[in-house]
Amino acid sequence: MGRWEPDIRVKLQEAALTLYLENGFDQTTAAQIAKLAGVTERTFFRHFADKREVLFDGSDALKELICSSVAEASLSKPPMDALLHSLVVVAEIFDNGRKDFVRKRYDVISANPELRERELAKLADYAIGIAKVLKERGMDELRAILAAEMTMTVLRVGMQQWVHGDEGETFATVICKLFTELRAVTEEA
Amino acid sequence: MGRWEPDIRVKLQEAALTLYLENGFDQTTAAQIAKLAGVTERTFFRHFADKREVLFDGSDALKELICSSVAEASLSKPPMDALLHSLVVVAEIFDNGRKDFVRKRYDVISANPELRERELAKLADYAIGIAKVLKERGMDELRAILAAEMTMTVLRVGMQQWVHGDEGETFATVICKLFTELRAVTEEA
Repeated sequence: MGRWEPDIRVKLQEAALTLYLENGFDQTTAAQIAKLAGVTERTFFRHFADKREVLFDGSDALKELICSSVAEASLSKPPMDALLHSLVVVAEIFDNGRKDFVRKRYDVISANPELRERELAKLADYAIGIAKVLKERGMDELRAILAAEMTMTVLRVGMQQWVHGDEGETFATVICKLFTELRAVTEEA
Repeated sequence: MGRWEPDIRVKLQEAALTLYLENGFDQTTAAQIAKLAGVTERTFFRHFADKREVLFDGSDALKELICSSVAEASLSKPPMDALLHSLVVVAEIFDNGRKDFVRKRYDVISANPELRERELAKLADYAIGIAKVLKERGMDELRAILAAEMTMTVLRVGMQQWVHGDEGETFATVICKLFTELRAVTEEA
């Protein structure tokens, strides 16, 4: 669904974010989004199952990207270095002209408790996926779970910091800074 | 609400967990819970706003407990040691005869996506509270956020491990083990 007509898909996403931010997610209908994007409501539903999917349809692809990146990371490094590298790969995609979209999406989700809960559940699901990959690569299960959870914590906190932080700072830089902080918090005095 | 008649409150919680596990959360009504507990439906609603609150009504008290424990933790220790100590205080309360209740609650929530999302949102809210306390105590904001998030990760993963782990192992022991693992994951090779 929606592999064709990439422009219409992007137009629908942009129209949706504009309306969610202006009028609130709950108050916006698929018909209004379609109208603003200059297409029919039927076209909207050819691209997205519902108005919530406009916000979450890239989630599965992102999960796959992170997991495959973790699966391919060098094993000669300490685990957190490999995970840092995987997140930087993801961050660079966001740094490539996606900030405006990511920021608007972040603001829409932050303003709505139901969407926030859905987002947290998605990230928890990523953590399960990463832990599985790390375990398959021979890491002890408990350690794999913790490493995966910390990776997702860095992604989530990093996004908060990045979307409303200094315009000149890349997401990749924010991620690197957070990994340094993570070490500082856990290390012995 | 419900400070009187503690026995009825506990009875209602136990009846609710029994029915949620047997028939599913969605299929259970307040009337059925009241009946199993041997009280009227009106009594149920004197104690709980709805059937979901049976699972979450202790959340605010737990958040306060963790935050006040973090607020009082010794500052002479490294931050994660202070946070570990705070979680152990909480864990010891659970170790004091609460395992059966915590396990049932965990199983009910795990079986229901909507409840899982709500639980994650509650824990995210705890993390915000802990970060605020750490910041008030002079910790750099970003570091405070990360330290708080990691503390909640340990609580969440620890609960998963504890409720279905070795019967002889206390929650406090699981928490201590996880902090050691956390250090192992983040430290340089």
